[in-house]
Amino acid sequence: MTGDREQLMAAPVGVFDSGVGGLTVAREIMRQIPNEKIVYFGDTARVPYGSKSRDTVTRYSRQIVRFLQAQKVKAIVVACNTASAYALDELEKEIDIPILGVVKPGAKVAAEATKNGKIGVIGTEGTINSHIYATYIRQINESINVIGKACPLLVPLVEEGLLKDPVTDEIAMRYLNELIDLDIDTLILGCTHYPLIRSTVGKIMGDKVTLVNPAYETARELKELLFAEGLLNQKEMSLGENKYRFFVSDGAEKFQQFATSILKYGILSAKTVNIEDY
Amino acid sequence: MTGDREQLMAAPVGVFDSGVGGLTVAREIMRQIPNEKIVYFGDTARVPYGSKSRDTVTRYSRQIVRFLQAQKVKAIVVACNTASAYALDELEKEIDIPILGVVKPGAKVAAEATKNGKIGVIGTEGTINSHIYATYIRQINESINVIGKACPLLVPLVEEGLLKDPVTDEIAMRYLNELIDLDIDTLILGCTHYPLIRSTVGKIMGDKVTLVNPAYETARELKELLFAEGLLNQKEMSLGENKYRFFVSDGAEKFQQFATSILKYGILSAKTVNIEDY
Repeated sequence: MTGDREQLMAAPVGVFDSGVGGLTVAREIMRQIPNEKIVYFGDTARVPYGSKSRDTVTRYSRQIVRFLQAQKVKAIVVACNTASAYALDELEKEIDIPILGVVKPGAKVAAEATKNGKIGVIGTEGTINSHIYATYIRQINESINVIGKACPLLVPLVEEGLLKDPVTDEIAMRYLNELIDLDIDTLILGCTHYPLIRSTVGKIMGDKVTLVNPAYETARELKELLFAEGLLNQKEMSLGENKYRFFVSDGAEKFQQFATSILKYGILSAKTVNIEDY
Repeated sequence: MTGDREQLMAAPVGVFDSGVGGLTVAREIMRQIPNEKIVYFGDTARVPYGSKSRDTVTRYSRQIVRFLQAQKVKAIVVACNTASAYALDELEKEIDIPILGVVKPGAKVAAEATKNGKIGVIGTEGTINSHIYATYIRQINESINVIGKACPLLVPLVEEGLLKDPVTDEIAMRYLNELIDLDIDTLILGCTHYPLIRSTVGKIMGDKVTLVNPAYETARELKELLFAEGLLNQKEMSLGENKYRFFVSDGAEKFQQFATSILKYGILSAKTVNIEDY
């Protein structure tokens, strides 16, 4: 093995999201491939992406990819459903390192999981209006029926910390009732914030509905991809050594608090970057 | 009167906000000084401002002011409480046309309205953490006690259209209970979205609490300011003639829908501007 290859294998994985939601993806990567370094970027100055247009989300994503490349990452995970839906195709054409989004891995597992051929997807307005999950799922199996439901209030409720709260239950119930009536047997948590209210969603949907968490599937696919490309880090890595680095475009302190509540160890620090410069 | 002066008087007033909330201020200006042209800018690509830092909000506001000056406005209204709280002082130093925010006019009227010297303020995290209302109110009367309460979920609930809904009632009740317990007799609606749920807030607070709507007071102060500076438009103005122009940084169509529901006439069109270029 050459020194260059070793150096490349030891390079970090870049992970980005519009804000804190992508931390659920970072968390899965930390669990499943603990030897990988991570550089995380949360676009907290321009959050949320879910209600914004394709052009805007693509422009923002492009800036972040340039920032991550400047950090010499070996691969990039678009840990945001809206950015995966709107920008991934463009980004893939523009860079020469592996890049993957959260949508395809989630779509694949959902297509395998459904028995009655009826899959529900919940997400932001952008993700749902893009019909991206339906597009990928139909490429796998044309006969599957995919029903999307935008849930714009769930992100603010999660960010407000109302993870177990009657108000969140009520709002989730309103959004999900429609999907229950349509008799889906599989539900994709199509927004990186939703794993944090997985138990609420699970209770409403009942035991017969399989919940698909794209964060989990994405970490699994990243592992496979890095292995296939000969990029998986073989050396054991302990915390420290700059293993996990966090950057945001605004409000580093608030981000640290939220991140510490999601990840099982305290985040040492998050740095602020002026992302418009990239 | 010289031609130059006439031309200046006929110039539009610039009004800006992080998104749609400032339309409640534009609406008051349309009602109170119907001969004024308006150029409205909503920063829908970077909304919301309420949870972002002083530096970021100031940088964004500065770009918008440059855009409005390129539209040759004669005065600027910062129709956003967070931007008024964080950026107004800086902006005032940088430009040579009159500029006013929504905070001072609201603070003044509240200070006059209170009888027991206990004023409540509800707003975004940014507005509340800045203590800007307290600062202005104490300049008028040092003995007044100002109690701020951040209400981060009210903006998403309003934007989701849940203006009359038990969930909005429940969330508003949680936020407001604290202020009721503290026996305030005056409450400032310190976010431009809140006039849209004025009746909900009024019902919870009861008849004995005076609600102050800074949007209304700001339009009144703008009128006085334009008059004092000899800038009030004397000519009658009908709709059409580009009287009201709307610009946004993203999602022009969605903005138009929301604006049409707030203003009493349909908005002909909203144009998209790449605000990062200013």
